[in-house]
Amino acid sequence: MIILTGWRARLGILIPSVNKTMEPEFYKMAPRGVSVHTARMTQKIDTIEELLKMSDYAPKAASDLADAEVDCIAYGCTSGSLLGGPGFNEKLLASIKQVTNIPAITTSMAVVAALKELEIRNVCIATPYHDDINVKEKEFLEYHGFKVLNIKGLSCNGPETADVSVKLVYTHAKGAFRTGSDALFMSCTDMRSLDIIQALEFDLGKPVVSSNTATMWMMLKKVGIGEPIEGFGQLLSRPRIDGKL
Amino acid sequence: MIILTGWRARLGILIPSVNKTMEPEFYKMAPRGVSVHTARMTQKIDTIEELLKMSDYAPKAASDLADAEVDCIAYGCTSGSLLGGPGFNEKLLASIKQVTNIPAITTSMAVVAALKELEIRNVCIATPYHDDINVKEKEFLEYHGFKVLNIKGLSCNGPETADVSVKLVYTHAKGAFRTGSDALFMSCTDMRSLDIIQALEFDLGKPVVSSNTATMWMMLKKVGIGEPIEGFGQLLSRPRIDGKL
Amino acid sequence: MIILTGWRARLGILIPSVNKTMEPEFYKMAPRGVSVHTARMTQKIDTIEELLKMSDYAPKAASDLADAEVDCIAYGCTSGSLLGGPGFNEKLLASIKQVTNIPAITTSMAVVAALKELEIRNVCIATPYHDDINVKEKEFLEYHGFKVLNIKGLSCNGPETADVSVKLVYTHAKGAFRTGSDALFMSCTDMRSLDIIQALEFDLGKPVVSSNTATMWMMLKKVGIGEPIEGFGQLLSRPRIDGKL
Amino acid sequence: MIILTGWRARLGILIPSVNKTMEPEFYKMAPRGVSVHTARMTQKIDTIEELLKMSDYAPKAASDLADAEVDCIAYGCTSGSLLGGPGFNEKLLASIKQVTNIPAITTSMAVVAALKELEIRNVCIATPYHDDINVKEKEFLEYHGFKVLNIKGLSCNGPETADVSVKLVYTHAKGAFRTGSDALFMSCTDMRSLDIIQALEFDLGKPVVSSNTATMWMMLKKVGIGEPIEGFGQLLSRPRIDGKL
Amino acid sequence: MIILTGWRARLGILIPSVNKTMEPEFYKMAPRGVSVHTARMTQKIDTIEELLKMSDYAPKAASDLADAEVDCIAYGCTSGSLLGGPGFNEKLLASIKQVTNIPAITTSMAVVAALKELEIRNVCIATPYHDDINVKEKEFLEYHGFKVLNIKGLSCNGPETADVSVKLVYTHAKGAFRTGSDALFMSCTDMRSLDIIQALEFDLGKPVVSSNTATMWMMLKKVGIGEPIEGFGQLLSRPRIDGKL
Amino acid sequence: MIILTGWRARLGILIPSVNKTMEPEFYKMAPRGVSVHTARMTQKIDTIEELLKMSDYAPKAASDLADAEVDCIAYGCTSGSLLGGPGFNEKLLASIKQVTNIPAITTSMAVVAALKELEIRNVCIATPYHDDINVKEKEFLEYHGFKVLNIKGLSCNGPETADVSVKLVYTHAKGAFRTGSDALFMSCTDMRSLDIIQALEFDLGKPVVSSNTATMWMMLKKVGIGEPIEGFGQLLSRPRIDGKL
Amino acid sequence: MIILTGWRARLGILIPSVNKTMEPEFYKMAPRGVSVHTARMTQKIDTIEELLKMSDYAPKAASDLADAEVDCIAYGCTSGSLLGGPGFNEKLLASIKQVTNIPAITTSMAVVAALKELEIRNVCIATPYHDDINVKEKEFLEYHGFKVLNIKGLSCNGPETADVSVKLVYTHAKGAFRTGSDALFMSCTDMRSLDIIQALEFDLGKPVVSSNTATMWMMLKKVGIGEPIEGFGQLLSRPRIDGKL
Amino acid sequence: MIILTGWRARLGILIPSVNKTMEPEFYKMAPRGVSVHTARMTQKIDTIEELLKMSDYAPKAASDLADAEVDCIAYGCTSGSLLGGPGFNEKLLASIKQVTNIPAITTSMAVVAALKELEIRNVCIATPYHDDINVKEKEFLEYHGFKVLNIKGLSCNGPETADVSVKLVYTHAKGAFRTGSDALFMSCTDMRSLDIIQALEFDLGKPVVSSNTATMWMMLKKVGIGEPIEGFGQLLSRPRIDGKL
Repeated sequence: MIILTGWRARLGILIPSVNKTMEPEFYKMAPRGVSVHTARMTQKIDTIEELLKMSDYAPKAASDLADAEVDCIAYGCTSGSLLGGPGFNEKLLASIKQVTNIPAITTSMAVVAALKELEIRNVCIATPYHDDINVKEKEFLEYHGFKVLNIKGLSCNGPETADVSVKLVYTHAKGAFRTGSDALFMSCTDMRSLDIIQALEFDLGKPVVSSNTATMWMMLKKVGIGEPIEGFGQLLSRPRIDGKL
Repeated sequence: MIILTGWRARLGILIPSVNKTMEPEFYKMAPRGVSVHTARMTQKIDTIEELLKMSDYAPKAASDLADAEVDCIAYGCTSGSLLGGPGFNEKLLASIKQVTNIPAITTSMAVVAALKELEIRNVCIATPYHDDINVKEKEFLEYHGFKVLNIKGLSCNGPETADVSVKLVYTHAKGAFRTGSDALFMSCTDMRSLDIIQALEFDLGKPVVSSNTATMWMMLKKVGIGEPIEGFGQLLSRPRIDGKL
Repeated sequence: MIILTGWRARLGILIPSVNKTMEPEFYKMAPRGVSVHTARMTQKIDTIEELLKMSDYAPKAASDLADAEVDCIAYGCTSGSLLGGPGFNEKLLASIKQVTNIPAITTSMAVVAALKELEIRNVCIATPYHDDINVKEKEFLEYHGFKVLNIKGLSCNGPETADVSVKLVYTHAKGAFRTGSDALFMSCTDMRSLDIIQALEFDLGKPVVSSNTATMWMMLKKVGIGEPIEGFGQLLSRPRIDGKL
Repeated sequence: MIILTGWRARLGILIPSVNKTMEPEFYKMAPRGVSVHTARMTQKIDTIEELLKMSDYAPKAASDLADAEVDCIAYGCTSGSLLGGPGFNEKLLASIKQVTNIPAITTSMAVVAALKELEIRNVCIATPYHDDINVKEKEFLEYHGFKVLNIKGLSCNGPETADVSVKLVYTHAKGAFRTGSDALFMSCTDMRSLDIIQALEFDLGKPVVSSNTATMWMMLKKVGIGEPIEGFGQLLSRPRIDGKL
Repeated sequence: MIILTGWRARLGILIPSVNKTMEPEFYKMAPRGVSVHTARMTQKIDTIEELLKMSDYAPKAASDLADAEVDCIAYGCTSGSLLGGPGFNEKLLASIKQVTNIPAITTSMAVVAALKELEIRNVCIATPYHDDINVKEKEFLEYHGFKVLNIKGLSCNGPETADVSVKLVYTHAKGAFRTGSDALFMSCTDMRSLDIIQALEFDLGKPVVSSNTATMWMMLKKVGIGEPIEGFGQLLSRPRIDGKL
Repeated sequence: MIILTGWRARLGILIPSVNKTMEPEFYKMAPRGVSVHTARMTQKIDTIEELLKMSDYAPKAASDLADAEVDCIAYGCTSGSLLGGPGFNEKLLASIKQVTNIPAITTSMAVVAALKELEIRNVCIATPYHDDINVKEKEFLEYHGFKVLNIKGLSCNGPETADVSVKLVYTHAKGAFRTGSDALFMSCTDMRSLDIIQALEFDLGKPVVSSNTATMWMMLKKVGIGEPIEGFGQLLSRPRIDGKL
Repeated sequence: MIILTGWRARLGILIPSVNKTMEPEFYKMAPRGVSVHTARMTQKIDTIEELLKMSDYAPKAASDLADAEVDCIAYGCTSGSLLGGPGFNEKLLASIKQVTNIPAITTSMAVVAALKELEIRNVCIATPYHDDINVKEKEFLEYHGFKVLNIKGLSCNGPETADVSVKLVYTHAKGAFRTGSDALFMSCTDMRSLDIIQALEFDLGKPVVSSNTATMWMMLKKVGIGEPIEGFGQLLSRPRIDGKL
Repeated sequence: MIILTGWRARLGILIPSVNKTMEPEFYKMAPRGVSVHTARMTQKIDTIEELLKMSDYAPKAASDLADAEVDCIAYGCTSGSLLGGPGFNEKLLASIKQVTNIPAITTSMAVVAALKELEIRNVCIATPYHDDINVKEKEFLEYHGFKVLNIKGLSCNGPETADVSVKLVYTHAKGAFRTGSDALFMSCTDMRSLDIIQALEFDLGKPVVSSNTATMWMMLKKVGIGEPIEGFGQLLSRPRIDGKL
């Protein structure tokens, strides 16, 4: 490995303070020369109210990441970036842009882009959420043109999300899938799914996208890193930059 | 690798917002089962004033890390934890303890403990700092009973610290060393030195400790992780837990 | 490797008490996240009478496997599941279903399904059996629509089957093959053949299926594990789940 | 690897029907040339009554293993072999000997022998059991001359034991340990601990023995396999056969 | 590796005395059986005058390489072989031929041939040079039929060229690239680029050629070494010898 | 590796007593499960007379190999099997068959078959021989329908053949090749060429066959070993057994 | 590996024509730069008479090996070199010396030297022989000062020796061992034991020497190859050349 | 590997123009972060006269290396630095110092220092030289206090030195060694010996030093690189920097 940490790009992630999964999963996915930097936004529990309020912390946190001269900033929360309804993503980006001059995305934007990249129409969704959030997530994806065949949650409250066992995440994912679906989406940057995505793709015979793979994929596209990443599903292993290579 | 990220311990680091090095170096050192989580404290430039002011952000940042249920918190800044003079480290820990109930350390405390662990008396120091900070650092270590044979800085202002080239860090480190010294200390959690510590130990024939290896070492001791870590100098590769293994 | 043994699936095998081969061969083939669990049915010697009587022990053994919460149960004996003639496989499955609610298969069913998967019409068979069992096996496969070009046994009595040397199994397999055959089937879950299947496929230029690869293949299909398994012949290395991967 | 499965030894284990852990952990530990074979004894739930009744199934199960010509048989249950009090282990062995002529051991015998091998006096114990069983286990070990500084259970009922997460087993183990203890014993052949024993030995600075490592160790000694096994704690990695190698 | 150093070919490079990069990069690229030998021509600073004067040292240096019985000689300097305008390359080759009978090339000739091999029409160029040299380089490539969409320098004076950091070279390369370009050319045998060519090809989606990869490629072609070299861009990894392999 | 040496096939080679190369090259090429066994025929120097006389020792040597129960016997000498002119190969085989009942081939037969397998028409030949033998070799190959564009020898007398350096063999091979040739044949089982065949195929862009690769290839075909052998040229790496694999 | 096969030494072995094991075992043990060359002596069956008569073929076979310029010759047969009683080894060497000027040894000499090297006094022996040969072997070793605690044979007739299964050789070896023995000797260059020597040393806790390891060890000593060979027992892994390395 | 070529040190070697071995052997030995740079001095043939005259080219060549900012310069020729008798080495260093300010050594100085480091008194020497040079070399080493038990040459004229085969160098080295010698010295930077030094140390049981290992060792000591280099003899693998590591 080339020693200059972040010689190719520095990725900045804004994450809910409760989140224990996005940082290690991002370090596992990062190609050589790409470093990951974090700032936290206070969010202790998965209520719609608290998830929306979290966005107040974004400008200060984004400004802190700008001090680290990151090349791109992600608002790293799925539900937190879609619960506000149409136009909310744009508001989040604007609030970040106000304090930094750095390209930014949100996880829910990344999920939409990733599913379109894979030419998905029908999708099933496995989440750790309570049903009130699931309803919103379904609306959000249908608003963006996807047909949601099934969405299923685990009714987690937040702090325990990262500790759901691999066996349960795997079983939950398979249980949420329906014949006729073009893909499975595993929602939430705090639900540990990175290490089983490859297995799930083999076992479902369809692409599997998680909040974290979608966010990483869109950030890399944004900063112009085309190197395929193997081992975490077909979204990340396909060519990311157009060209005749 | 066992998938449950952080099954053994979760380490929380409070870092200056300008810092680009501590996160990737911590992920490189972390033994299996140990995850690393970050919160940022605003600090844009390496003046004594700004470094001291940064501590105001510690309680909020520590509280955010507590939401991620970390097992230990480090105030990850060398100069920022020693510039306040005797008693300052204790004040920092108290301010963290007030908002969380989690064991905490600071980098400058860790450096003192690490040098004592290695039974160092005479030490040379390579830093990226201006001389006003170097003077304070020398006082701090001498206050704790070490003889500082030499201290040499690079007069960085902060944002460029992480981009100092490996060749320059290596040359700087060798240039700061004096015969008769028991060890070299490479100060600053933002100066990239992790990948050359092993080479420097071979080339100087003495232990080399950096702010990041000292901080990692003390956090692991605190949370009871005894597994030796190879490749980053003798501090981390020696047994950390007493016992007859 | 992900530590949660059996996080993806638990396979339960009912095996003749005399069998020494099926357990280690199943552990060699199992993909990550799949564990194997055994219950024994008393059968000491390879007579048609004793092989048929063995089925009396199936319900109790299946019930014991159900206690281990397996996801699928296999009646792991080739001759023992075909000697009863048409309808016998169905009877076995019914007796297992009576005591558990777990999907079940038999080895002889799996062999038929595997040969069909590979679109085999003409087949040669190498067995460790006496000729009375070979006659029954030929009838069974012809009943299911295959043309058996040749079947050849080793006249083992049971306990010594697992100790037949690799050299002899290899030579026996090649000797049983006839030009014009689409595949070779190596019958008996107790005849050690797993480690030479790849070599035989190279040397015969045709697919080679054993009782154990067929049983593993059908169980994985049943529990929805699509990951290809390399090194044990083309049956296991081909995609197992339909999809556009 | 030498292909003749079991050319060096065949190990036979009698396990509770509910057990999902002993088979995969034994296959992980087995040195080359050693195969593992299983027979189940009905036990669905971890009550003292049912654990004692399980021994009725031992003779039939042992006889089935004898058909597979195993070189040693283990009664693979910790509590199940100690709840009967002094003399119970001997009764179990006698009942097995009656139907086979094969050397046999029990898990609780193996634990006593392993702790003596390591010259342990004071021990702490982590179990998945309810307290009524813990009391019996403490009595058993004290009867054999050990001082039990602490014993702590998880109050599992049986079926869920194998699914306790790695994080919880690790935390439970560390929580059960007391300063002054010479070792930690992790009781129960169904509690997944094999993959963290090495980490625990580093982190406690003391030997860690589990029911499964103790049972494997004693069986290998019994059948004369001296090859050290690395990665599962110091009990298995030390020389097992006396000699001047 | 076969021990007879240079059993397949010996490559001789004439390099500017200031150059610190061409020797190690050539040793990294050399396929087994190919050795590299150097002679220096005095050139201390990157002025057009000094670069032209350097050619006076070529005959003596070439004669020294001939003593080492090399199979091919390269005039290893990009600007130094193109600043003389049309006909200068031919003059350089003639002066080498006068003292040796060994096939010779120049770096600027190799660059033209390499870009033609890849069927490039439009090209962007990243250099370490001042603008007066960039102007000449643009003219040279356009004289040979390429369209230069952009050329960008770093205004190095010579001695510091080899110490430009990887991060800066990478950023410089990406900054010099324009949409519509068929390739990127990284000019100068002393600018360290070998280790990032692969990354740049992924990130630009187009072939990337450096002065050193072009020179190595043409020398290998000249001496008849067809073995593909992996890891340094598509120029070196494509078949180099016509044939039906 | 499977331990039973020769479980798949035993190859017997009759070699000139002076030969030092065929045994180690055969052991390098042998796929798993294939052993090699040697018997020597007295031949001390490379004169046509002595090479022809060597065949008198074949029957006794073949009989010795038969005692080792080999599956195929090769008369391992190129010139020695072609100098006798048309019909000589057949005489050699007959003399071997008289004392054993084992399939046999000769090296010169194998060369003809290998070149035909690769659909070669025009061929160049590099040998270690004096010209009188080269003339005979050319006649032999032209008798079998090939056009020999060039044949070139090294005028070795026999004992020194095996010590010709790799550099010289490589240079000799390239020097013997002519444009328009479909392949290069490196004649003589005692000339060390195995380790450079792959390099030569890259550098000539055409198939390269040696006496030893041709002999190994034909023996494997004869005994039904279809496994591709990588690293020694395309003859051995192509499928050897017809089939739909 | 360095390509010049036999650049360090060439070993010549005279083997019984029936032998199928010594050649592959010697190629497995040979350190880099050492090649092995064979000549056969007719011996079809393991009778004392035929084994003694075999020595008539030694001079011709040794002369053939001398043509290959070997550095040392071994009479590669244990019983064949000891059945002739005291003085027979010397006669064999004299007959070889008469036709060549090359250092020579016999297997039975090598066994005596190897056991002395390991300072063995009491030894047990496992052989494939009938008892008449075992009696002679015991006498031979006792004549040389060893105490033979036990010797046990398999009553093989010769041709089947090489096919005895690994499991049987292993069991036979352990069965021949007696407490109080300093080592186990596995007699016969044709009995496959090389791959289990390491396992046996672990399982017996004592050095294990075979006819083939002893012969290789003495030949290497003779030709001055001191490099330790790992994986085949302690005889070959200990330093072979005196010196202060 | 860390990408900044030469971040730890740049080594400059002045070599005879005829030399083909020192460059590749230096690149093989160089530890990470160390680059090698060459300048040639004209010397076409190994006569005493020409070897002495070569020193006239040293100042210009050294000046060229200084342009590459090397940290140390070696006059890379054994005989060329000792033929001038006492005081000649000093003259060479003075002439280099006159044009550069860089630490310098010569190969013959390095050999003396290396043999003293290993505490050698009696030494044997293998060279490629004619006897007139051997006589001078013996005098030189005896002048420095060593006892030369034997010195033996190959009578090479220069250009062919690098092509002497490995087998011949190995045999020559062993042939030059005498019992009672503390080490073997292989003289000449152009004689390929690096890859067999390890083998020779095993086979002679004594340290083996070559001109190239001695030169590399002294240069690394000079520039303060203490990292042990494995695989080329004990001189380079021992600690090079004093300290308590």
